Amino acid sequence: MKKITDKIPVGILGATGSVGQKFIELLQDHSWFKITALGASERSAGKLYKHAANWFQQTAIPTRIANMVVSKCEPNLPCKIVFSGLDAAVAGPIEEAFAEAGYIVISNAKNHRMSEDVPLLVPDVNPDHLSLIEKQKTKGKIVTNPNCSTTGLVMALKPLDDAFGLDKVSVVTMQALSGAGYPGVSSLDIIDNMIPYIAGEEEKMQIEVLKILGKLKDDKVDFSDLTLSAQCNRVPVINGHMESVSLSFKKSAKKEDIIKVWKEYQSEPQKLGLPFAPQPPIYYFDDPRYPQPRLHRDLGNGMAVSIGRLRECTILDYKFTVLSHNTVRGAAGGAILNAELLVAKGYYED
Amino acid sequence: MKKITDKIPVGILGATGSVGQKFIELLQDHSWFKITALGASERSAGKLYKHAANWFQQTAIPTRIANMVVSKCEPNLPCKIVFSGLDAAVAGPIEEAFAEAGYIVISNAKNHRMSEDVPLLVPDVNPDHLSLIEKQKTKGKIVTNPNCSTTGLVMALKPLDDAFGLDKVSVVTMQALSGAGYPGVSSLDIIDNMIPYIAGEEEKMQIEVLKILGKLKDDKVDFSDLTLSAQCNRVPVINGHMESVSLSFKKSAKKEDIIKVWKEYQSEPQKLGLPFAPQPPIYYFDDPRYPQPRLHRDLGNGMAVSIGRLRECTILDYKFTVLSHNTVRGAAGGAILNAELLVAKGYYED
Amino acid sequence: MKKITDKIPVGILGATGSVGQKFIELLQDHSWFKITALGASERSAGKLYKHAANWFQQTAIPTRIANMVVSKCEPNLPCKIVFSGLDAAVAGPIEEAFAEAGYIVISNAKNHRMSEDVPLLVPDVNPDHLSLIEKQKTKGKIVTNPNCSTTGLVMALKPLDDAFGLDKVSVVTMQALSGAGYPGVSSLDIIDNMIPYIAGEEEKMQIEVLKILGKLKDDKVDFSDLTLSAQCNRVPVINGHMESVSLSFKKSAKKEDIIKVWKEYQSEPQKLGLPFAPQPPIYYFDDPRYPQPRLHRDLGNGMAVSIGRLRECTILDYKFTVLSHNTVRGAAGGAILNAELLVAKGYYED
Amino acid sequence: MKKITDKIPVGILGATGSVGQKFIELLQDHSWFKITALGASERSAGKLYKHAANWFQQTAIPTRIANMVVSKCEPNLPCKIVFSGLDAAVAGPIEEAFAEAGYIVISNAKNHRMSEDVPLLVPDVNPDHLSLIEKQKTKGKIVTNPNCSTTGLVMALKPLDDAFGLDKVSVVTMQALSGAGYPGVSSLDIIDNMIPYIAGEEEKMQIEVLKILGKLKDDKVDFSDLTLSAQCNRVPVINGHMESVSLSFKKSAKKEDIIKVWKEYQSEPQKLGLPFAPQPPIYYFDDPRYPQPRLHRDLGNGMAVSIGRLRECTILDYKFTVLSHNTVRGAAGGAILNAELLVAKGYYED
Repeated sequence: MKKITDKIPVGILGATGSVGQKFIELLQDHSWFKITALGASERSAGKLYKHAANWFQQTAIPTRIANMVVSKCEPNLPCKIVFSGLDAAVAGPIEEAFAEAGYIVISNAKNHRMSEDVPLLVPDVNPDHLSLIEKQKTKGKIVTNPNCSTTGLVMALKPLDDAFGLDKVSVVTMQALSGAGYPGVSSLDIIDNMIPYIAGEEEKMQIEVLKILGKLKDDKVDFSDLTLSAQCNRVPVINGHMESVSLSFKKSAKKEDIIKVWKEYQSEPQKLGLPFAPQPPIYYFDDPRYPQPRLHRDLGNGMAVSIGRLRECTILDYKFTVLSHNTVRGAAGGAILNAELLVAKGYYED
Repeated sequence: MKKITDKIPVGILGATGSVGQKFIELLQDHSWFKITALGASERSAGKLYKHAANWFQQTAIPTRIANMVVSKCEPNLPCKIVFSGLDAAVAGPIEEAFAEAGYIVISNAKNHRMSEDVPLLVPDVNPDHLSLIEKQKTKGKIVTNPNCSTTGLVMALKPLDDAFGLDKVSVVTMQALSGAGYPGVSSLDIIDNMIPYIAGEEEKMQIEVLKILGKLKDDKVDFSDLTLSAQCNRVPVINGHMESVSLSFKKSAKKEDIIKVWKEYQSEPQKLGLPFAPQPPIYYFDDPRYPQPRLHRDLGNGMAVSIGRLRECTILDYKFTVLSHNTVRGAAGGAILNAELLVAKGYYED
Repeated sequence: MKKITDKIPVGILGATGSVGQKFIELLQDHSWFKITALGASERSAGKLYKHAANWFQQTAIPTRIANMVVSKCEPNLPCKIVFSGLDAAVAGPIEEAFAEAGYIVISNAKNHRMSEDVPLLVPDVNPDHLSLIEKQKTKGKIVTNPNCSTTGLVMALKPLDDAFGLDKVSVVTMQALSGAGYPGVSSLDIIDNMIPYIAGEEEKMQIEVLKILGKLKDDKVDFSDLTLSAQCNRVPVINGHMESVSLSFKKSAKKEDIIKVWKEYQSEPQKLGLPFAPQPPIYYFDDPRYPQPRLHRDLGNGMAVSIGRLRECTILDYKFTVLSHNTVRGAAGGAILNAELLVAKGYYED
Repeated sequence: MKKITDKIPVGILGATGSVGQKFIELLQDHSWFKITALGASERSAGKLYKHAANWFQQTAIPTRIANMVVSKCEPNLPCKIVFSGLDAAVAGPIEEAFAEAGYIVISNAKNHRMSEDVPLLVPDVNPDHLSLIEKQKTKGKIVTNPNCSTTGLVMALKPLDDAFGLDKVSVVTMQALSGAGYPGVSSLDIIDNMIPYIAGEEEKMQIEVLKILGKLKDDKVDFSDLTLSAQCNRVPVINGHMESVSLSFKKSAKKEDIIKVWKEYQSEPQKLGLPFAPQPPIYYFDDPRYPQPRLHRDLGNGMAVSIGRLRECTILDYKFTVLSHNTVRGAAGGAILNAELLVAKGYYED
């Protein structure tokens, strides 16, 4: 892997939005990347970032960013990599325009996730899928990360799929409020309450997991043949998606072996020592009360996944609880790790 | 059914506790029952109720009750029916002593739920199980209601079991805080958080449902042969247990037929016009955002069950969401309905 | 007072909004009024109410209302009294048009509150101010109720002002989320958090209290000369505004006398037996932990005010805590009581 | 100031409790101190810390600490400085025994705060009060920090008192749940609710502020002559006490001058560069929505104080909002800063 000597200039598309702000927060001290461009809507363009954005992160706007002038989301930004936190409503054509113009687009939007030649990438799970970008005919490339409720789940599933072969996976999510963006869910709808519905979420989970756990064959992803059923709920938690999972394997598996494959799991990001790679990527708790969102969402700087309560299931084989930070591991942080993998694999040239 | 002319005197065991207070609140204007005795621990006995209880219901202590003197939980109370809101730690021998002495014990405690000759009763689901008490050899009788997370579930399952035959039921609960009693869950453990574990809860659900949905044969309950798997979570909601359910049937079932059997469901309490019988017992919502705890827990005065989001499941046949009020339908209110059924069926004599 | 034989037809302006929904919920079983018209924006006009409104109250839409057709907010509605839950942004000219056309407008909006000939009315506090409407030159009349944070406060202050003469009042509010309308405050802004600012709120409190506690002289309100200072905070509570108050009197007052004047307070609505008049209007709690929003906001069907913790102040004379239900007493319910007073006083003719 | 070459061994009294855990969390990477002893009750003594403590911090137990054996709270611990997070019920005699035996006791308990020869110390406010310990006749010494609601307030008041002379201060607090310890406030008492009462809190604030802002004269503290009135409320926030303050000065003060003295405030900890000294100690926000607990409690690693909304008051001169982290700045972190000041001032000898 090539050593990064000078920081790589990167841009943020949708820089004033919820995901865009998270990109800025997470990238401010990044050892490889330096933000050199902020793209947003026409309404924001031309303003100083501090005037354009309604910043609502817990840390202050980084001073250098606060005083940068916001640009339009047009492919003339001073960088070769752009992180896209654009809304799905506008992400499609903008990201394509950047790819046409030669930019590497690291997208958190759903628009291109299911395209045949676009990797739906979780570097700890399917790093080899990155090579799909070689099939993209544009000068630039698009790489996507999955929906926030998918990411934590596939992190827990991958070691099990490798070891025992997944057959059926039933998941009920209890998802945090930040997953709905800002202002998102009204306080009147969620205090002393929960909502058993998140539009489009179950459909996304049910297909994305199959692509991510699919095998790369002849430059195509052969989707996993496991069967997934998802039920998605919104709960009054700020950050951290919890999921109650039950599943069955193709091979027989002992409880202690399952815990072992989780605890020992290492993947490409750990081996490459990528800056955002969590080490370990997976925590397993013996205390049955754990994991919990507020206690464990920040493990591994929000990039690790926490698992607990593995026990037998009377219907499928086993059941357990998994937790991951939805705006870090499940969105901006996951996208940054995608960019790191791409650079480490030599797909970025000065 | 005999007409109730004079109100029936009843006592409350564990009257100062969380369930005891709910009994008092719900019984204060009951058309059949009148509280004539309050039993509690030795520490409380001899005091006025208003001095003995740390009352934390949203309505004020009924004035007449406030000034009643608390008795010990000994079988010399001026009534023939007692409602037991005792802790499981002490409920066993006290309830037995009352039954020996000729009292009808309507218990919310878990101690006798699984005894062969004790009905685990949900009057809208298994009213015929009440006749099990005829097998009890004591002069008095014990009737129990199930765990709060079981009650809502069996209300949703019973019409389906009758119509299509249940095979497998997988349930993930998101349970309210009041289910843990008072003070129960620390605020520091649950604000901006949730807990994936409730001690003993999954085990209780997995066996209680089978007894309740069992058939009465030769004066015994032949447990249901369905397979149940439960995962129980605590969420920051005051009242109202939500459950994400997936299930399979023995017969094939169409979506519209399932909804129809729920909407048209009527059982013994409705036919008898029992005071606490919800009418309808089951609400089905077409709006995918419903039911929600804060909006729907009080339907039917907290005795109705709300269901929504019926849709096909990729692993089992269907999935849906069910909600019920855990301290009303799932505890004190359910016990009161049990007492009403018992009276209506002629098991109480002046 | 004239006996109400037939129910009086009333309309709701802004019927689909947050306050409009509360008007519908509170008026559905009203003994004097019957909703015969629902006015809303052009976008909603012509639709059935159930299709036009995003109903988010805890009770279901009353069936009769659900199937009424929504009208535009134009002064041709089949009623003579209209309740206005319109946004301040549009309320001004619409309410004036209705008044010009002969309607009695019972408004919750701020637009006309400070007009010299418009009563800013809290029937338990300044019922005599109602006669101000005789000065209005229009065929119809406009009556307003104050801001939700003002109402609870003046209810607590009025008996003290009568008895001891108020000099200075310092109030810090902790206001509920429903006061901000729907969707109002984002859940991301308020869970595990609070906000020390509500735009315009302090200014409204500081002037409205003076008008309401003013004396009617020569058909004008002579504003109270007390000095008020308000600090307004938003807290994560669904309903119920709490206020920490400290104040000084012109005369000396003993603690027991203050409590006595609160406990014995009776005003015009109680004397007239108005349907929405709380009896008693004021609760005083000796328990220092009370009042609390969730426990006491619904006292008197949400129309009573709760007070506790009266104690001496080292700077002013006394301090205490006051609670009132902001969307009932402080908005829709208060407006309905205004209409009741107006009818009882003979200002409505068939 | 002497350079710290080897880390100073310190012990924790009450190490398994809520404050004790926070001491451990904050001291784990401290540049001057190293934990060498953990004191707790007899029940815990002899166990490994990880078995004795119900650890509920968001970070994991530091590995070295987890495997230390807990001792009794007897003055034979291998260190010369002990941090006391003991409950007030037991702190008095234990802390005295340690002082008698020659230990420096840095206490968070209230027991000795008002003793004439014990400094009630906030190093950014009254560092000179530390010299009071010279009057203590024991071989060891006791230093205390104030109540958590006092600390944030005096940080905001001190620069104003220096510049303009404080006359009257009226404060209404909205305090976080962690201030009540663990399990502390029941979730059933605080979700969708607040409590207008914290036992003993107002009395503590009203006297502690006067001692801290007092002047040292002839080896005694001459208490400040300002008048303070406090009203204390509990709100559903995990960490971070907010306070709505109004006050009057002896001299006239302009708004911009007040903001200036806050922004430019520097005190002994900043000058000495103490490890836990926040820099700046005070943040002032122009945005009227700020400060907010979740957004700003962690500024300066939880040691800084945040202020906003300075504006004129109609009764006193000015009003504003102040926020500080109650378990860091207001408890364990404040105590650690006290120890740092004591060491820097030469009161600790190897």
